[in-house]
Amino acid sequence: MIHEEVIRMKTKGELDVIDITEDVKRVVEESGIKRGICLVFGKGSTLGIILNENDTMLLDDLKELIKELVPHKEYNHPVNARSHLRSILLRNQVSLPVKNGRLEIGTWQQVMVLELDTRPREREIIVTVVGES
Amino acid sequence: MIHEEVIRMKTKGELDVIDITEDVKRVVEESGIKRGICLVFGKGSTLGIILNENDTMLLDDLKELIKELVPHKEYNHPVNARSHLRSILLRNQVSLPVKNGRLEIGTWQQVMVLELDTRPREREIIVTVVGES
Amino acid sequence: MIHEEVIRMKTKGELDVIDITEDVKRVVEESGIKRGICLVFGKGSTLGIILNENDTMLLDDLKELIKELVPHKEYNHPVNARSHLRSILLRNQVSLPVKNGRLEIGTWQQVMVLELDTRPREREIIVTVVGES
Repeated sequence: MIHEEVIRMKTKGELDVIDITEDVKRVVEESGIKRGICLVFGKGSTLGIILNENDTMLLDDLKELIKELVPHKEYNHPVNARSHLRSILLRNQVSLPVKNGRLEIGTWQQVMVLELDTRPREREIIVTVVGES
Repeated sequence: MIHEEVIRMKTKGELDVIDITEDVKRVVEESGIKRGICLVFGKGSTLGIILNENDTMLLDDLKELIKELVPHKEYNHPVNARSHLRSILLRNQVSLPVKNGRLEIGTWQQVMVLELDTRPREREIIVTVVGES
Repeated sequence: MIHEEVIRMKTKGELDVIDITEDVKRVVEESGIKRGICLVFGKGSTLGIILNENDTMLLDDLKELIKELVPHKEYNHPVNARSHLRSILLRNQVSLPVKNGRLEIGTWQQVMVLELDTRPREREIIVTVVGES
């Protein structure tokens, strides 16, 4: 059994964070799938999908870390090379277990979209649930 | 066909490594699933799941690298910010192919839980196998 | 429904990049699976699987970044420690959504194998598609 849905959003610009945990939970619960795997996939090469605690201070720390590891500087690829490189490092997908018809994730595991491009973007996140009813 | 099992363990503290390859192999073999995908998911935001060679010297190198990339210093998030940031960077899940009823992974690919929190923890690793018998 | 295929290749040495997007697309289209998840898994602990834009300048930037984050220096593990560490950081797998019988990925999302070992290698990439026809 397969269920698929697209979550759409507009981001506000570089390093904007959008928590989509409730959307993903809703997709899983509406799917009727009781056990399986849920893939959350960002359709784009300049965004990240993060699974961690949605805490403002932690997200500030994460943004600082990203700027240190992949700094805003001149690269060969024009304009937004840092956006691509950060996306490669952070990844733009996460797979989550489904159990008893719900996401089987921890209390401090939120699914967040991290805009890494240098400007606001319209984003499509593909949620695919594979499993048994 | 879906099979799901939880692997439980106590970790000894920061940067403790627990090799769960044999546990994951056993779950796959007991599942009766011959072909498919196995998701190994760490339920927590301060641990990592690593897929690589279980070699003491390499793990020492990895621990040094982690400390360099995400140093032990003051962050905005209290106490264990570095644990969360390291978990985001290393990820806490891995998906593995299943073929002929077994994990189809390389000789030097071991599945390891890396404790990133600043203290010993009880951990739950959710193993979900999706496929055909 | 499950479909599995192995993509084989020879790499030319450290930091060689091989774009396998067309191979993965072909596997998905030949599978007959219309909706589901496709796992692209590198069988080895010294390679990376990248999902991003196949642009020469961006790949040059990526190679520079990798050398900065995990430098070529003396490690405890002999010979190719940097290859393993880079593989851990970049990951050697990616999960992709399948929709309408095709990979549902963005225009600038290419699947690329990144050789991280210090010498040419023969590589096996396991492609597993799980879903419904």
